[in-house]
Amino acid sequence: MKPSIPKGTRDFGPREVNRRNYLFDTIRKVFVKYGFQPIETPSMEDLSTLTGKYGDEGDQLLFKVLNNGDFLRKADQEALEAKDSAALVSSISKRGMRYDLTVPFARFVVMHQNDIPFPFKRYQMQPVWRADRPQKGRYQEFVQCDVDVVGSDSLMNEAELVQIYDEVFRDLNLPVTIKVNNRKVLAGIADAAGIADQFMDMTIAIDKLDKIGMEGVKDELRKRNISESAIDTIEQILQVTTLDELKPFFSDSEIGKKGINELETFHHYFDTYEATNTVSFDVTLARGLNYYTGCIFEVQAEGVKMGSIGGGGRYDDLTGVFGMQGTSGVGVSFGFDRIYDCLEELQLWPADSAERLKLLFLAFDPASHTYAFRCLNQVRAAGINAELYPDPVKMKKQMKYANNRNAEYVVIIGSNEMASGQLALKHMATGEQTEYTLDQIINKLIDNS
Amino acid sequence: MKPSIPKGTRDFGPREVNRRNYLFDTIRKVFVKYGFQPIETPSMEDLSTLTGKYGDEGDQLLFKVLNNGDFLRKADQEALEAKDSAALVSSISKRGMRYDLTVPFARFVVMHQNDIPFPFKRYQMQPVWRADRPQKGRYQEFVQCDVDVVGSDSLMNEAELVQIYDEVFRDLNLPVTIKVNNRKVLAGIADAAGIADQFMDMTIAIDKLDKIGMEGVKDELRKRNISESAIDTIEQILQVTTLDELKPFFSDSEIGKKGINELETFHHYFDTYEATNTVSFDVTLARGLNYYTGCIFEVQAEGVKMGSIGGGGRYDDLTGVFGMQGTSGVGVSFGFDRIYDCLEELQLWPADSAERLKLLFLAFDPASHTYAFRCLNQVRAAGINAELYPDPVKMKKQMKYANNRNAEYVVIIGSNEMASGQLALKHMATGEQTEYTLDQIINKLIDNS
Repeated sequence: MKPSIPKGTRDFGPREVNRRNYLFDTIRKVFVKYGFQPIETPSMEDLSTLTGKYGDEGDQLLFKVLNNGDFLRKADQEALEAKDSAALVSSISKRGMRYDLTVPFARFVVMHQNDIPFPFKRYQMQPVWRADRPQKGRYQEFVQCDVDVVGSDSLMNEAELVQIYDEVFRDLNLPVTIKVNNRKVLAGIADAAGIADQFMDMTIAIDKLDKIGMEGVKDELRKRNISESAIDTIEQILQVTTLDELKPFFSDSEIGKKGINELETFHHYFDTYEATNTVSFDVTLARGLNYYTGCIFEVQAEGVKMGSIGGGGRYDDLTGVFGMQGTSGVGVSFGFDRIYDCLEELQLWPADSAERLKLLFLAFDPASHTYAFRCLNQVRAAGINAELYPDPVKMKKQMKYANNRNAEYVVIIGSNEMASGQLALKHMATGEQTEYTLDQIINKLIDNS
Repeated sequence: MKPSIPKGTRDFGPREVNRRNYLFDTIRKVFVKYGFQPIETPSMEDLSTLTGKYGDEGDQLLFKVLNNGDFLRKADQEALEAKDSAALVSSISKRGMRYDLTVPFARFVVMHQNDIPFPFKRYQMQPVWRADRPQKGRYQEFVQCDVDVVGSDSLMNEAELVQIYDEVFRDLNLPVTIKVNNRKVLAGIADAAGIADQFMDMTIAIDKLDKIGMEGVKDELRKRNISESAIDTIEQILQVTTLDELKPFFSDSEIGKKGINELETFHHYFDTYEATNTVSFDVTLARGLNYYTGCIFEVQAEGVKMGSIGGGGRYDDLTGVFGMQGTSGVGVSFGFDRIYDCLEELQLWPADSAERLKLLFLAFDPASHTYAFRCLNQVRAAGINAELYPDPVKMKKQMKYANNRNAEYVVIIGSNEMASGQLALKHMATGEQTEYTLDQIINKLIDNS
C-alpha cells in the first residue's frame, strides 16, 4: 500500500515546524507583553455547540465525528429509510471539530464565568478544521491565532489590539497596512442615504469594493433595490478619507456620530503610541457578514499578493447565544498560514534558530567513536546542541549526512585526535578549520550562541 | 442552552496552559540538545492508514470523521439495509483521527523517504484521540511526546534515548526509575525454559507481574498451558538482577546471548554519562503486546502512585507495513498528561514563568487614565509585560482585578502622581511600596526579569 494524507492537510518537516514555531513565538511574545493569557479548548466540541453558529454554509463545512460503537442502533430510523444524510447526522454524530476559535471561546467564557477575572484578556492559537475545497492557500486543517478582551467596553482595548498588530508585523519585518473603520459609521452611511432598513444589503455590497470596484458595487446596490439617489450619497461618502470630512454627512445620524466618536476615542489612546506600520481610517472597510457592532479592523501585507492576513472588531453580545447576556467582546485574529506564506515569499525568515544543530562529531573507527561519544556528553552537559553520527561508517556517508543536517560545525575524530587531544573544528559555511582542545571548543561555542 | 464539552476532553485555563508549555519546553529543549528535529503530521489521516495497525480494540477506539455532503449516497447499501454499523463505516468515513504518533511517523518516513537524511532523528509532540472510556488520568484527547531514530542499528541511539529520559526528569526535578531490558533476553528465557514457541504467551504473563505478583504470573502461565518445569525455570530467571547472573541460563540460547550482548553495548555507551536518576536492568520488564525486537525501556515516577510515565524500545521493521522494508527504528515516548499530573501532585512547578504579568497600572480618573496609558506604552516598549485596567472605575473593583490577575507589581495613578511624576510601585507579595520615576521603574523591572 502506498500511503497518502487527506486532501487539504499537510505534513510539516523540521524546517517548516521550526519556522512555524518562530511565527508562534513572535506572536505569543507580543500577546504576553500586552497582558493576554492563553487558553486552549478541545479539538472536538459538542455538535450542538457548533451547529447554527456559522450560517448554512458553515454547518455544511463542519467536520462531524461519527459516534463510536454500533452507531446505527440509535440512528434516526426515518432519516435512514429516506436516505436523508442531513437529517441523519445528529443521530449518528454528537461531536464536531473546532471550526473557529470564537465560538469555543464564547462557550468557555460562559462555562467558566465564575472563575474568570473580568475583563478577561485571552489569546488562543490552535488548529481549526473546515471541509472547504482545498486550493492554494486554503487548507482543511489550519491555525488561527485569536486575541480578545471580553467584559470591557473601553476603546483602549481597540487601541491595544491595533498596537499588537503593529508590533507583531514590526517584529516579523513584514510591512502591513492596518485599516480601521466602525460598523456604526456604516450604519451612519445607510442613515445618510435614507436606507437604514437596508443596512446589511449595503454592507455586503461595499464589502466587495476591493474585488469589483466602485461601478461593480453600484450595480450590486441596484440589484438589491437601492435607489439611485441613495447610491449617489453612498458613492460620495465612500470617497471620504478623514473623520472630519465625514462629519457633515452625519449631522442627522445619531449612530453615525457615535461611530465617529468611537473612532476619535480610539485615536485618543492609539496616537500616544509610535506605530511602525501604516494605520489608516478606511470608510469602505465593511468586514462582510460578521456580527460586528463597533470598530472593525483588517490587515493587508505590502508587496505580496495575498488577501487580508488579519481582521477583527467589536461584537456587543459575544456570549448571548450561550445564555450569558450583555457581555461585550473585542478581538482580532491573525491568519497564521497566510502570514507564513508571506514570510516565505518575501524570504523574511531569521538567519538562524535556537533549534539549529551546533556541532556534529564524526568518527573514523570504533575506538574513536567511543572517544567521540565521551566528548559529545561533555559538549551537551554545557548545554550545546550536538550529535555524533551513530556508527563509524565510511567517511563519505558521514560527510553527506553532515551536509544534509546543516550543522554549523563539524569535528572529525580518528586515532591522531585521540592521541593528541587536539580536535579540528570546521566551520561548515566558510570551510575554516582550527585546532582546539575540547574545553576550548566548548567555551567557543557557548560564547558563540 | 447550557454549554458543555464532550466527555473525556478538557478546557485549559491560563495557569494550565502556562504549566503545559513549561513541560513542553523542558522536554523540547532536551530533544533539541540531542540533535532531534521536529515534525508534525495532520490530525486526520486516511482511515486506511490507521485501520488494522492497533489491533481490534484499537480499531474500535479510533475516532472516524463522517464524510461531508450527502454521505449516504455512496454508502454501502447492503450494510445500510442490514443496519451493520461496522460494515458501513468505510463507505461513509474516509478519515480517522490520529491515534498515536508512531503510525503517522512511519507513514511520514515512507512518503518523504527521498527528502530525509538518514538516520532520521525526529521528535513529535501532538495530541492524539481515543474513544476510551474516560476515567481519572485517561482522556479522549491527550498529548504524546515521541522521540525516535529511524535508519540506524547502533545501540548508541538506545543510550542517548535513556540519557534524554534522565535529563528531562532531572530538569523537571521529578525523580524516576528507568528500567531497561531487551526483548531478546525474554526470548532467551523462553529458550531456556524450552518454550520458544510460546514466547508471546510468556511475555504477556510476565508483563502482569507488577499487578498480580509472581504467584499470579505462575497461574497465568499455567492457564496458557506452560509446563511446571518451564515455569520453575522462568521463576528462577526472573529473580536475576544482573547481566552476569543471567549468562549461565543462556549458554544454549543464541538469541539470549545476543540480548545480553546488546545490553552490554548499550552500557558501553551509556556508562560514559553521569545519570541523575536510577537506571536499572529489569529482567521482568516485558512491555506487553508491542512489537519490540530489541532493547525496551519503561519509566516510573518515585513517590507518586502512577503507572508508567514513559516507555519505548526498538522495533526492527517500523515502516514495512507501508511498503518500505528493513528499516529499523528505536524510540521512547513521554506520557505528557501523566507527567503533568505527577508535577501537580508533588507541586514541582517553577515559582515563576516568563508569561507572568509584571506590572499592572490602575488609574483614578479619565485624565490619569490617559497619563497611565502613556506610561504603559513606555513600559512595554522596554519589553516588560504590563497592562492598564481599561477603565478608571471604582478602585475597589480595580484592586480586586489586580489580586485575581496575580500581577507582580501595581502602580496606582491619580492627580498627585501626574503632577509630581513620582509613582508608588507596590510589590504585591510583600506589600512593600516605594516611590520612583517611570524611568526608574523601567530600569528596576528590566534588571529584575
